[in-house]
Amino acid sequence: MREEATAFVPGHVTGFFSTHPDEDPTKAGSRGAGLTLTDGVEVTVEPAEEPTIVLDGAETDVEPVTTVLETLEVTARVEADSELPIGAGFGVSGAMALGTALAANRVFERKLSANELVTVAHGAEVQAGTGLGDVVAQAHGGVPIRLEPGGPQDNKLDAIPSRARVEYVSFGELSTADVLSGETEELTAAGTEALSRLVEEPTLLSFMYASRLFARDAGLLTERVTEAITDVSAVDGQASMAMLGETVFALGTGLSDAGYDPSVCATHPAGAVLK
Amino acid sequence: MREEATAFVPGHVTGFFSTHPDEDPTKAGSRGAGLTLTDGVEVTVEPAEEPTIVLDGAETDVEPVTTVLETLEVTARVEADSELPIGAGFGVSGAMALGTALAANRVFERKLSANELVTVAHGAEVQAGTGLGDVVAQAHGGVPIRLEPGGPQDNKLDAIPSRARVEYVSFGELSTADVLSGETEELTAAGTEALSRLVEEPTLLSFMYASRLFARDAGLLTERVTEAITDVSAVDGQASMAMLGETVFALGTGLSDAGYDPSVCATHPAGAVLK
Repeated sequence: MREEATAFVPGHVTGFFSTHPDEDPTKAGSRGAGLTLTDGVEVTVEPAEEPTIVLDGAETDVEPVTTVLETLEVTARVEADSELPIGAGFGVSGAMALGTALAANRVFERKLSANELVTVAHGAEVQAGTGLGDVVAQAHGGVPIRLEPGGPQDNKLDAIPSRARVEYVSFGELSTADVLSGETEELTAAGTEALSRLVEEPTLLSFMYASRLFARDAGLLTERVTEAITDVSAVDGQASMAMLGETVFALGTGLSDAGYDPSVCATHPAGAVLK
Repeated sequence: MREEATAFVPGHVTGFFSTHPDEDPTKAGSRGAGLTLTDGVEVTVEPAEEPTIVLDGAETDVEPVTTVLETLEVTARVEADSELPIGAGFGVSGAMALGTALAANRVFERKLSANELVTVAHGAEVQAGTGLGDVVAQAHGGVPIRLEPGGPQDNKLDAIPSRARVEYVSFGELSTADVLSGETEELTAAGTEALSRLVEEPTLLSFMYASRLFARDAGLLTERVTEAITDVSAVDGQASMAMLGETVFALGTGLSDAGYDPSVCATHPAGAVLK
C-alpha cells in the first residue's frame, strides 16, 4: 500500500445534452458535448481509519465519492482542491469521483483498468443524481462528443479536433439534481437536435451555436445568463451557458471583449491523470 | 484556409500484439498494448503547389502520409520533426500519418471529427503495411490496451491507469512490413496469450512481463536485444523489446542502472494534439 496518490481531473462544461435513464447506473447517462478545461480538481487519497472527504479545506459529504470508496472497498481520506466554482456546471462532483477512483486504485493497489475505474465513478455520479456525462468526458479530455450514453463499456465517444482559450463567469448555482428530477422531455428533444447538428459539422463554432439553441429551447436560460451571452454576441464573440449552472463560458476573449472580468483557462488536451 | 497548422503526436512502443487482417484497412489492425511517449513527432502542414514530405530536414516519401493527403483531397507540404529514431519501433510513420490528418483538417477546414481523422490515418498506415495499431494508440495517449482491432468506429480500447518514466536504446531497424508479410501464426498466438494475461491484471509490471514472454515466444528477439533485457533484469529492472525495431525500452531507470546510456522520456498523458 502506498502512502498517498494524487490525480488531476479537468473541469467539464456541457454545452448541451439529452438524458438517457437506465436501471443500471453504469449504463444510464447522457448524450451531448462539452469542453474539458485546464482548470480542474486535484484529488489526493490516503489510507485512513475513518472515511473523510475534504473539499477546499472544509470537511464535507460528497455522495459519489463515498460510493466510489465503498465500491473499491477502501477506507480513505480524500482531499480535493478545486480551481472551479462548486455547483456551477463545471463537473466538480464528477471530477472528485473520478479522481478518487484513480488515486484510490493506485494507493490501495486495486489493479483495476482505466475503463473499470471510469465505470465505477460514472455509476456513482449517476446514482447520486449529480451528473450524467461529466465523468466519461473528464476521462477523455479535449472537446468530447458523447454519441452514446453510459460508462466506457457501453458508450461511444468522438471529439472535435480543436483546442481553444476558454473564458467563464459564474453568477451562481443551479441544482443538477433538481433539473434532472423534473420534466426532461423538452430538454432531451433539444439535446438530440443539437447533437445531430454537431455531428454534421464537428467544429467549435458549430458546438457553440448548437449549445445556444439548446439552452434556449430547453428553457434553462436565466436573465443574467441571457444578458451575458447577448453581450458577447454584440462584440462578435461566441458564448453559451454551462449545463447545469448559472455560468456563461466563451471561446477566446469573448467575455473580456464584452467588458466582463472572466476566469481564463483553455481546453485540456488530456483526460484525468495521476500525478 | 489557414496558413499552416502543427500537431504533436506522441511516440508509441508496442510491447506485444496480434494481427487481424481485413479487406477493409479501416477495420484491419492489431490487438495489443504499448506505451505512448512524451518523445514524439511534430508535424506541420501548409498548402503547397506540389505535395512534399520532409522528415527531419530531408525530403522523403512516406506512403501513409501521401494517402492521408489524397483522402482529404488536399495538396500540401508536410514537415515532420521526430525526436525518435525512424524504423526502430516508435510508431514514427503512424505519428506522421495522424499528425498530417489533424493538421491538414485544420489548415484546409475539412470539418472532420477526431474519430474520422484517426480512421483516415489508421487506414492509410494499415494499407501501407507500416503499422497496425500505432495510430489508434497515439490518438488515445497514456498506456493503451487495444482490446479490439481497427479504427475508432470498430475498435475497443482500455488503458493501464499509470504513468512512468521510460528509458530506451535503439540498436537498429527492423522492417515492420517484412515481419508482417511473413508467417504470423506463432506471433498472433503469443500476442493473444499476452493480452489475456494483461487484461487479468492491467498494471505496468504485468505489461512488461507479458511483453517479454511475447518477444520470446514470437521469436522476434535479436542477440543485442536479449543481452540488454538480461542486463536490466540483472539489476532488478523491467525491460522489453519495442515491436518492431531492434529497440529495448525500460521502466524507470532500468537501462541506466544496467550501465546503458539511454534516451529518457515518460508516458504521454494525452493523445495527439494540435498545437
